[in-house]
Amino acid sequence: MEHDDPLVIFTPSGKRGRVPRGTPVLEAARRLGVDLDSVCGGRGICSKCQVAPAYGQFPKHGVTVAQDALSPVNAVEQRYDDKRGLKPGRRLGCQAQIQGDVVLDVPPESQLHRQVVRKAAEVRAVEMDPATRLLMVEVDQPDMHAPTGDLERLNAALVAQWGVAPATAALPVLGRLQTALRKGDWQVTVALHHDRPGAPPRILDIWPGFHAGPLYGLAIDLGSTTIAAHLTDLSAGEVVASAGVMNPQIRFGEDLMSRVSYAMMNPGGAVEMTAAVRTALRDLASEIATEGGVDPRDIVEAVFVCNPVMHHLLLGIDPVELGQAPFALASSDAMNLNAVELGMDTINPAARVYILPLIAGHVGADAAAVALSEAPEKSDDLVLIVDVGTNAEIILGNRDKVLACSSPTGPAFEGAQISSGQRAAPGAIERVRIDPLTKAPRFRVIGCALWSDEDGFAQALGPGGVTGICGSGIIEAVAEMRMAGLVDSSGLIGSAEQTGTERCIPQGRTHAYVLHDASAAGGPVISVTQGDIRAIQLAKSALYAGARLLMDRLGVDRVARVVLAGAFGAHISPLHAMVLGMIPDARLDHVRSAGNAAGTGARIALCSCAARTLIEGNVRKIEKVETAVEPLFQQHFVAANALPHATDPFPELAQVTTLPQVNFNAGGNDGTRRRKRRG
Amino acid sequence: MEHDDPLVIFTPSGKRGRVPRGTPVLEAARRLGVDLDSVCGGRGICSKCQVAPAYGQFPKHGVTVAQDALSPVNAVEQRYDDKRGLKPGRRLGCQAQIQGDVVLDVPPESQLHRQVVRKAAEVRAVEMDPATRLLMVEVDQPDMHAPTGDLERLNAALVAQWGVAPATAALPVLGRLQTALRKGDWQVTVALHHDRPGAPPRILDIWPGFHAGPLYGLAIDLGSTTIAAHLTDLSAGEVVASAGVMNPQIRFGEDLMSRVSYAMMNPGGAVEMTAAVRTALRDLASEIATEGGVDPRDIVEAVFVCNPVMHHLLLGIDPVELGQAPFALASSDAMNLNAVELGMDTINPAARVYILPLIAGHVGADAAAVALSEAPEKSDDLVLIVDVGTNAEIILGNRDKVLACSSPTGPAFEGAQISSGQRAAPGAIERVRIDPLTKAPRFRVIGCALWSDEDGFAQALGPGGVTGICGSGIIEAVAEMRMAGLVDSSGLIGSAEQTGTERCIPQGRTHAYVLHDASAAGGPVISVTQGDIRAIQLAKSALYAGARLLMDRLGVDRVARVVLAGAFGAHISPLHAMVLGMIPDARLDHVRSAGNAAGTGARIALCSCAARTLIEGNVRKIEKVETAVEPLFQQHFVAANALPHATDPFPELAQVTTLPQVNFNAGGNDGTRRRKRRG
Repeated sequence: MEHDDPLVIFTPSGKRGRVPRGTPVLEAARRLGVDLDSVCGGRGICSKCQVAPAYGQFPKHGVTVAQDALSPVNAVEQRYDDKRGLKPGRRLGCQAQIQGDVVLDVPPESQLHRQVVRKAAEVRAVEMDPATRLLMVEVDQPDMHAPTGDLERLNAALVAQWGVAPATAALPVLGRLQTALRKGDWQVTVALHHDRPGAPPRILDIWPGFHAGPLYGLAIDLGSTTIAAHLTDLSAGEVVASAGVMNPQIRFGEDLMSRVSYAMMNPGGAVEMTAAVRTALRDLASEIATEGGVDPRDIVEAVFVCNPVMHHLLLGIDPVELGQAPFALASSDAMNLNAVELGMDTINPAARVYILPLIAGHVGADAAAVALSEAPEKSDDLVLIVDVGTNAEIILGNRDKVLACSSPTGPAFEGAQISSGQRAAPGAIERVRIDPLTKAPRFRVIGCALWSDEDGFAQALGPGGVTGICGSGIIEAVAEMRMAGLVDSSGLIGSAEQTGTERCIPQGRTHAYVLHDASAAGGPVISVTQGDIRAIQLAKSALYAGARLLMDRLGVDRVARVVLAGAFGAHISPLHAMVLGMIPDARLDHVRSAGNAAGTGARIALCSCAARTLIEGNVRKIEKVETAVEPLFQQHFVAANALPHATDPFPELAQVTTLPQVNFNAGGNDGTRRRKRRG
Repeated sequence: MEHDDPLVIFTPSGKRGRVPRGTPVLEAARRLGVDLDSVCGGRGICSKCQVAPAYGQFPKHGVTVAQDALSPVNAVEQRYDDKRGLKPGRRLGCQAQIQGDVVLDVPPESQLHRQVVRKAAEVRAVEMDPATRLLMVEVDQPDMHAPTGDLERLNAALVAQWGVAPATAALPVLGRLQTALRKGDWQVTVALHHDRPGAPPRILDIWPGFHAGPLYGLAIDLGSTTIAAHLTDLSAGEVVASAGVMNPQIRFGEDLMSRVSYAMMNPGGAVEMTAAVRTALRDLASEIATEGGVDPRDIVEAVFVCNPVMHHLLLGIDPVELGQAPFALASSDAMNLNAVELGMDTINPAARVYILPLIAGHVGADAAAVALSEAPEKSDDLVLIVDVGTNAEIILGNRDKVLACSSPTGPAFEGAQISSGQRAAPGAIERVRIDPLTKAPRFRVIGCALWSDEDGFAQALGPGGVTGICGSGIIEAVAEMRMAGLVDSSGLIGSAEQTGTERCIPQGRTHAYVLHDASAAGGPVISVTQGDIRAIQLAKSALYAGARLLMDRLGVDRVARVVLAGAFGAHISPLHAMVLGMIPDARLDHVRSAGNAAGTGARIALCSCAARTLIEGNVRKIEKVETAVEPLFQQHFVAANALPHATDPFPELAQVTTLPQVNFNAGGNDGTRRRKRRG
């Protein structure tokens, strides 16, 4: 490089250097290490290498860019512009040659490792670093005097033209190879998968000539109850379709432990459950391809996040060891597999699967995905991340240390084991407010935009009516009941007399609070029973105790931030969660919902090999705490049973709250007797 | 190591060194790099590490070995001896500790890399270096306070106890892992497969506690006509069972090109043929396991040798490109696959497959296996190796250079396209002698130990009688006919008058020689027709021309040695082959049959990873010559058409041989007319 060679400055990277006059922009970018995409390798076909030259004076960069800094638009560019249209001011980097000092902007869509900005609420951005890329190559024709296989010549071309290591080809690709090479007149595009340094790349597929793509991957959140998949564009990082199905294993047991039991009690039970979930995945992949209008063959990867039991059942491992101490995992490291090994034969036949690492016997790849998404190891302040589901996974940490545990909350937070409980589906009460004076409730129902006390609610509700109460609804209901003085700190529901509302009705030896009574119209009576309160108390005590245990380990009694993750976490009201004592105290504005953080983590791992390496390393560093055998956990659990609500709004009820709980439980269902004992 | 540490000398390696007093022999062997086997890792279970101490004075080694040079027999050895019996003078290397200077012999069966001496006729020995070994390990129990997967702890144990790299585990192994560890009380034996440096080892299977093995592999010679498999002990290198089946693809076409045509003409034809051969392999694997009395699960590897068309059809690649110039292979390099990818689900579910590299579009992995078995690159003198089958693969070379080509001999050498031709099976004439004076034939038939002119032949032959003539039979018949003056150098069969035997009968415009006439008893007339001679001439010309072409390339007109390979080659009489002009002249005692060299090459590759590396490198170095487009080949082919037999035993026939061939062909079927023209 001579000193009088033109100076090239790329933005936004700021990378600069001199290249010989006549160097194509794409070549200059490569030499200077600028992230400029290309699939066709400089043949003027793919248009991925577009740049926007800037002309004029740039005192900041110390250059003046003349109008002839780049070679004039050539025939290839003109044809591309005529046929597909180039945005004004854009040039094809493989065609435009550098003739003088120039400033070239690389727009985001031309960056291979572009930043994918996630939802507005979230600050972190992910840099695209997909395992699978499309690469176009020109392959030498066979020479019978120097006979080598088509694959070997394709590999030589990939090495020479793209600087990659020699790749292996799956059998389905070998079957397509020869036709593709000849149909494309020795130009082909391959899907090259390279997920780890050291491991040889794999050719996952091959197309004659130029294949525009994009390629897709599936980010799959394999939950005990539902399986959610996000079809993601592997170059743009965007989700183009989402689909979910119920996990068909539900017929073998509602929650994880009942599935483990099923496997223990029924010979071949684990095999049955494996087959069920694999069939569901197979069909889900088909369905989402159709929904997204994507050729299933273009789906070349899938990333899974799941809890340890789902993980083992997906892989065909009997989960029996996860049902008993010491909760030994068959394998905890991340896994790389062929999709067909999991029976996923409805996508590209050579598609690869990545499964995130497991943290511990009760803390799965889903928790690892949450950690990847929320990155506690990068947090300056102490963050508590709670993924609320059937089990709660709890992560606590900051840049110094990260701890994790799992807490057996049971399914109450999901509306199960609640008298009027149901899944979050249309007809379910999801929000509840109780007037502290009148003790009258109002609520909102999934599928209806109006509150129950708003005009037109009944009509808006539709013929299905109110069918039950879901997880977020029961949490709000219990917290509101506590704030309205309908429940004491021990969790006991007061009688009509005690609470001053006829909505508190006797039920056996205890009371229930009626939220909604449609019995006159033949509909259900939806109430919160004493049993419901107990179930929520157990669940929230477990969750709180887990968080406290981690805090003990760190020697802290406050956290700076709380993140509620999980599909359900997205619907919890932080205020109500804190009133309930689900989570340790924190400033209300420092409690945030992260939505489906596990799903987000899956998408990040799908889009970025660097992220896979990162989380594999981080998981090893996370300090695992096993709650099941920790005496402190039991202490915290018992201690957390009360409903704190320190500033009781109804002092007249304070008397009630001081009553020994045993009296209520031992007593009949009339308030009189209890009051007598109080006296 | 102190100077007064005991001196240990291992024989036969001669390795020596000092080790601290009390060092177990196995440990001493490891430190000194002595090849002493062990599966159980020193637990006194497997008995693989047996050594034979020698006592007394050893002036050659400069030591005197006292009776107490090794620690006394301990309880572990005593128990082993009581239960299974130790040969006299043997000690368990893991138990016996070195107490003084000692000379220790490592018997062959205790050497991991023992030499496997092949058939007496062959000098080369193969050193065992199998890809898959049994290793016993003791694994840490799970600790819920430091949760890692069982696989990760197993790997840690393998790394620590055996010094191997961390291994991956196939899904079927993951499914068995947890049960095996617990059943074996945290001691397990794994089948560890490690075929190439750089690639991670794979755990192919796991057994609780100690698994004695041995493990087995299949060496498979996948021919166009037959599939032969040898079940081989992977530690001893011995074949424990062999089995063969017809290649079911025969129903799609007898020879390679007709199968390629079938694939071209019939959509889905290649897929059909792939399915057919895979089913046959699946069944063959089952059958051979049963025959060998081996648990199919203990069969953990298969090595394939095959021609390029069989190779492609096995892998599910349409072979159409192999039917036309430039005969481009889809892939030429060696392949490593899972057996299940080829549908072989009747052996260990994680079994691996290795396919030898292909040399060129017409020179396959079978030829590579021949090259591996015969090692021309190690030969001081120039060796010509001919693998005779439907196509002949020809290798010529010495330590300076190796060349290879394929010649389209057609199936005549296999008895096809011969009027009375048949496969080599009971009833087929396989050897022929013709008395030069009486012109009477005598022959031997497969399945019968007597010559046809020996007493009791008819009885020994049995009711099936003589059914036809096989490849080796037709070659001998034509050569004997030439030597007996029944055929001239142009290949023309003389009339009864010309030859002086009524066995030469008219047939159309030409003559045939009757070898055997059972028509009186309703049996067949077996004769050699003019068409048969022409077919053999075409085949032998092709073979000879190929060999000549390679000799031209090397600029030689003689070879020092000729090796006839192939199952058929094993039955060819070198004398007759040379009379026919099948092979270039060489001293008769320098013509050797190598038997099924391709099958032997497969076995070598099965037993030795080093051999795989070796042949992969050698195949790259082999200079490939494509006969199909080589003008010199055509010249040689035409020139080789004659039947040379320089010392014609019957000068009176010389006249016949000078006759222009066209006259015979144009003439009628009576000798008169021809004689007239001769006059």
